[in-house]
Amino acid sequence: MRDCPANAQLALLLEVTGTPKPGNVDRHRDYDTLRFEHFMAGAVGARPGFEAAAAGTPIGTAFAQSIEGMSHQSGGNTQFGALLAIMPLVQTAATTDLTPNAATMVVEETTIEDACAFYRAFDHVDVAVPPPPPGLEDLDVRRGSDATSAITNRGISLYQVMDHAASHDGIAAEWTTGFQRSFEAAEWLLTDDGPIYQRTSRTFLRLLADQPDTFIITRNGQQPAEEVTERAAAVLEGTEAGEVLADELVARDINPGTTADITAAALFIALERGLEV
Amino acid sequence: MRDCPANAQLALLLEVTGTPKPGNVDRHRDYDTLRFEHFMAGAVGARPGFEAAAAGTPIGTAFAQSIEGMSHQSGGNTQFGALLAIMPLVQTAATTDLTPNAATMVVEETTIEDACAFYRAFDHVDVAVPPPPPGLEDLDVRRGSDATSAITNRGISLYQVMDHAASHDGIAAEWTTGFQRSFEAAEWLLTDDGPIYQRTSRTFLRLLADQPDTFIITRNGQQPAEEVTERAAAVLEGTEAGEVLADELVARDINPGTTADITAAALFIALERGLEV
Repeated sequence: MRDCPANAQLALLLEVTGTPKPGNVDRHRDYDTLRFEHFMAGAVGARPGFEAAAAGTPIGTAFAQSIEGMSHQSGGNTQFGALLAIMPLVQTAATTDLTPNAATMVVEETTIEDACAFYRAFDHVDVAVPPPPPGLEDLDVRRGSDATSAITNRGISLYQVMDHAASHDGIAAEWTTGFQRSFEAAEWLLTDDGPIYQRTSRTFLRLLADQPDTFIITRNGQQPAEEVTERAAAVLEGTEAGEVLADELVARDINPGTTADITAAALFIALERGLEV
Repeated sequence: MRDCPANAQLALLLEVTGTPKPGNVDRHRDYDTLRFEHFMAGAVGARPGFEAAAAGTPIGTAFAQSIEGMSHQSGGNTQFGALLAIMPLVQTAATTDLTPNAATMVVEETTIEDACAFYRAFDHVDVAVPPPPPGLEDLDVRRGSDATSAITNRGISLYQVMDHAASHDGIAAEWTTGFQRSFEAAEWLLTDDGPIYQRTSRTFLRLLADQPDTFIITRNGQQPAEEVTERAAAVLEGTEAGEVLADELVARDINPGTTADITAAALFIALERGLEV
């Protein structure tokens, strides 16, 4: 049996292997400066953070450790969102049954110190995030560790950080909704058949067809995000070719990164629930 | 900085990612029952064995641990030879400069107990090996842990096991020649340029063009092994297409597994010497 940290690492590797995942780096596609090999190195570097979370290290600290480890490659941000989604699930699975309620208890118990550690993780890597709302400039995550005194002064927990971001960030929304989409997609993976890279592709497309990707909204805008959702649905309906859409989105630099991150979380849950590789 | 166990794990992942690697599973090719995802899971499972070797656990025990971890996937033998090649290099790199002489000292110090642990590793996975010579049937590695009393009675170290096999097994030959081909190929990786998956492909082809692959000899015979060597040279000379040869060898089930294993060892050495991902 693989333990939780091993399953978490494997989830990262299986996620990037799934193909076609239109707009993402996958087994068959690279961006010029963000390549499959960077995701391999990111997954290798993330493992000690998973082990820390499973051993009881607070989630913020374990997350920051995994981001620091992930960052030892030249591609930049490979798995920031995936690690944010998976880390509480690892800590949950290491201590009890991995259920939406148990995961919610874990994230609700996060502290101000977890929030500070989360902000410090931004020191290691550039992440595309929207600017903060007016009046909350001191909480801009892009300030990294410079923002930790504002966090402490305002007394904000990591769960509260996620709660503030949930309306515009799909991973934060997972934190505040019992990881609803991740658990649902895990069942799709478990009840599908065939090689995992194909199940991963289908699960990714179902998630993408279901909701506009918040990473696309942040980087490219609402309209492209909605277009991609409609076209993912067309791929599932068989009226558009997934491989063609994948090549087009890479060419247009439209990357549904949040959907990939939720797919990784779903893979972790599925592995914990017995998905055989 | 990645530590030795992380570099060892990354070497396994980068090896299987390299494409085209004619005859092997690679980023673009699967066999029906041996797929890319099995290599991902194998690399995930192998890591604790690497960590044990780096921490000073005897090589045989660390190797058996890595094989046990590797075996938690349904594809069968994914990285047996690669782990056998890399494990002494990990222990060397964890304690001193990684040089041919230092690695030779490490393997020469292996004991009878290392040999017994090596045999026990065969309990976890089916490995294609030739039958033992007449009179040495009790030392057939395929007997696994059943052979350990014969090992003990004869007083054979793991180095001696490798010395006996060096004439017909390319990994055993690395053990007894200061990992000569692995160190040479590491320099090719370091002085090449471009994405790692392309460097890995070129390094694999150079190794394959240089010597017949002993895994092909064992499974398919001498003539196919020599044919593949000549055709790998043709790919390097530009008179044959690597992608076409890759598809053909997969269809013929001709798998240059030993060359892939040496490529993985070369990637580990290159990463330790500063190969940037």
